Amino acid sequence: MTQTQQARKGITTSEMIAAAELENVSVEIIKQGLVDGTIVIPKNINHSFEARAIGKGLKTKINANIGTSEIRCNFQEELEKLEHTVKYGADSIMDLSTAGDLSLIRKKLIDASSIMIGTVPIYAVAAELIRNNKEFSEMTEESLFDEIELQARQGVDFITVHCGITKATVKVLEQSPRLLGVVSRGGSLLVDWIKSTGKENPLYKEYDKLLDICEEYDVTLSLGDGLRPGSLHDASDKAQVSELLVLGQLVQRAQKRGVQVMVEGPGHVPLDQVEMNVHMQKRICNGAPFYVLGPIVTDIAPGYDHITGAIGGAIAAAAGADFLCYVTPAEHLCLPDKDDVKQGIIASRIAAHSGDIAKGLKNARDIDDKMSASRKKLNWEDMFKYAIDPETAKQRKKDTQQDDEDYCSMCGNLCAIKIHNKSSS
Amino acid sequence: MTQTQQARKGITTSEMIAAAELENVSVEIIKQGLVDGTIVIPKNINHSFEARAIGKGLKTKINANIGTSEIRCNFQEELEKLEHTVKYGADSIMDLSTAGDLSLIRKKLIDASSIMIGTVPIYAVAAELIRNNKEFSEMTEESLFDEIELQARQGVDFITVHCGITKATVKVLEQSPRLLGVVSRGGSLLVDWIKSTGKENPLYKEYDKLLDICEEYDVTLSLGDGLRPGSLHDASDKAQVSELLVLGQLVQRAQKRGVQVMVEGPGHVPLDQVEMNVHMQKRICNGAPFYVLGPIVTDIAPGYDHITGAIGGAIAAAAGADFLCYVTPAEHLCLPDKDDVKQGIIASRIAAHSGDIAKGLKNARDIDDKMSASRKKLNWEDMFKYAIDPETAKQRKKDTQQDDEDYCSMCGNLCAIKIHNKSSS
Repeated sequence: MTQTQQARKGITTSEMIAAAELENVSVEIIKQGLVDGTIVIPKNINHSFEARAIGKGLKTKINANIGTSEIRCNFQEELEKLEHTVKYGADSIMDLSTAGDLSLIRKKLIDASSIMIGTVPIYAVAAELIRNNKEFSEMTEESLFDEIELQARQGVDFITVHCGITKATVKVLEQSPRLLGVVSRGGSLLVDWIKSTGKENPLYKEYDKLLDICEEYDVTLSLGDGLRPGSLHDASDKAQVSELLVLGQLVQRAQKRGVQVMVEGPGHVPLDQVEMNVHMQKRICNGAPFYVLGPIVTDIAPGYDHITGAIGGAIAAAAGADFLCYVTPAEHLCLPDKDDVKQGIIASRIAAHSGDIAKGLKNARDIDDKMSASRKKLNWEDMFKYAIDPETAKQRKKDTQQDDEDYCSMCGNLCAIKIHNKSSS
Repeated sequence: MTQTQQARKGITTSEMIAAAELENVSVEIIKQGLVDGTIVIPKNINHSFEARAIGKGLKTKINANIGTSEIRCNFQEELEKLEHTVKYGADSIMDLSTAGDLSLIRKKLIDASSIMIGTVPIYAVAAELIRNNKEFSEMTEESLFDEIELQARQGVDFITVHCGITKATVKVLEQSPRLLGVVSRGGSLLVDWIKSTGKENPLYKEYDKLLDICEEYDVTLSLGDGLRPGSLHDASDKAQVSELLVLGQLVQRAQKRGVQVMVEGPGHVPLDQVEMNVHMQKRICNGAPFYVLGPIVTDIAPGYDHITGAIGGAIAAAAGADFLCYVTPAEHLCLPDKDDVKQGIIASRIAAHSGDIAKGLKNARDIDDKMSASRKKLNWEDMFKYAIDPETAKQRKKDTQQDDEDYCSMCGNLCAIKIHNKSSS
């Protein structure tokens, strides 16, 4: 039984307990969220780790994408990236590998991962076709479901499936005056497949088959937004919203079956449309957890998209987005390296935490208050302790430190806190 | 005559024309803004450079703080920082030097600066007292005004003066249950002075004298928020708002005289209070341009405060803040070095630009659209051209580039744009 099905039967699982403890909320809150479909606990029955929940009223979670590509295929590097993701505080990784022995890489990452792991199964199908010099249009429906089943059996906790790319939404897309048609890899493959074969998207047509697999292994569906905008210009357009409407229907079917489901969102969104996008998803998708990619709020900052993503992510989290996919400084330029992974995670955690404070999550600001109290006392050790990245903070301070440790090189004796502490004493 | 006084007499100055050209708006818009007090053109009559305007309906501007400190006092380094600020696109610098021959450093920076330059005159007064082993409470009112006059004569374009720290607001402060009392350096000095001497803040008491100096050299007043919050906990509290109310009255007096004036704002503000802070300042300060420091939206990210500041800055700009003071990765840890200056400026420009798009500034999104069109064509040269930091984007791409330039190492052949371009052709 899935976590949702168990919650509906009144069963309290160890996963619910672990998730509740991590959030410092009662297990009843987690359970009710599972029943309502506003909370998911992505945890495959074949993957052993400490479960975390994603959804309404909980801390905003963050995901880090890793994985090999054709041009950079070094499994050791990916393992090191995984270590980085855990060290710097990601709640999940997605293995987006497209080169090397994908099944083996995936298995090893699942075994090594102490956090949730997600995939986009269609990548493996596409990579296999490319390897055999075949066109993607030659993909068989069977091969796609076989791959999904394989990955579910291997222990993948959540899968991105672009079920909302249908003949109908592709038609809307073709009538949309976009600057950048389709920027989702899975999305572009399925649009191509539908247009080449004239057939309906199997992930939509055979959605029940997908639900069967997810139910069996308790894989959480992450309904992908294959038509997400790839530029501010295209944000919130008819193609995007048409797909969202389809996803809303599919959410309902999954929830009815007791299959855990969340919904993915953009992408590239002007700052003033971010909140609206969150509210729209929540309304149309029956409160299912919302998993956004960024969103980035300007298109002109390649090299700094962890920052453009942190801006959009913070606003999204404040508005109710539940799960942020990080964006790294490498976005739009190259495959992220280890430092990119770190920078992306930290930026994303800043966004998530700022959003949690803004949305009034209980006790979210406690650590900020502790930091502020440490600053008042000029207690550097405590400041490092409460810092999101103690190592970096310590190093920066150390590089410019003098013997007298109660002030920093920024203000020296003209330190406002010192002056004010003195005049208040 | 100040720019405002000239605008009120119907005179069109070369500064108004230059500012209008930079914004691609009619000179009448600039002129009307000067008349209304919603726009300022900080440009001292003794400082020669291409003027820029700050205020309503214009591009959000950004400021970079530089300057020596006791512990890091290297004038050459500050000159290099100045070059960086111009290269990476700041609209102004503030010279916050507190060590070395302050008058000489300031004069050299003014001569070298092709952008607006601001200062906090009280720093020089305090540094001089410290050098002479005196307490700050020994500061004479005369020495403060002499310093302001000296700096105005030297060509400083705008000065931060904490006129809102008064006996009355200090009383409110003392009743405020703050975690971090005062974090403004100028603010803490004046609070100390008022408490030690029992006298009223000369910048408040003799405000007309300040207006005289500003009028003579057309120095723009930047009314500092000495009681700005230093932690999320303290944000938008009674002490902060009490000071803002005083500043609102002083804005009115400056505007009446035709002295250019803007108002400074926080600081440390939870994301959900940023917009409110902007609207409150605009209402209370008669639409005077709002110059915010960050604001940073969480206290726990020392080492990454350019990101926490970019989040707050973007939201502030979208809500109508006109001028963003950058925050660098060094904030709360040490004096920024050259790379910090660069990182701070880029993050701040991202915030300003995202805000400009969100507030619907005409043509603000054009460059994003050009970037997106270049992405569609996989035209890397154009992508670099439109990037906020072409150098960095180019370098990242180059490091992972292969012969075949039409895809990057992130997706290789599984590039959504390539797939979609093919299936759409």
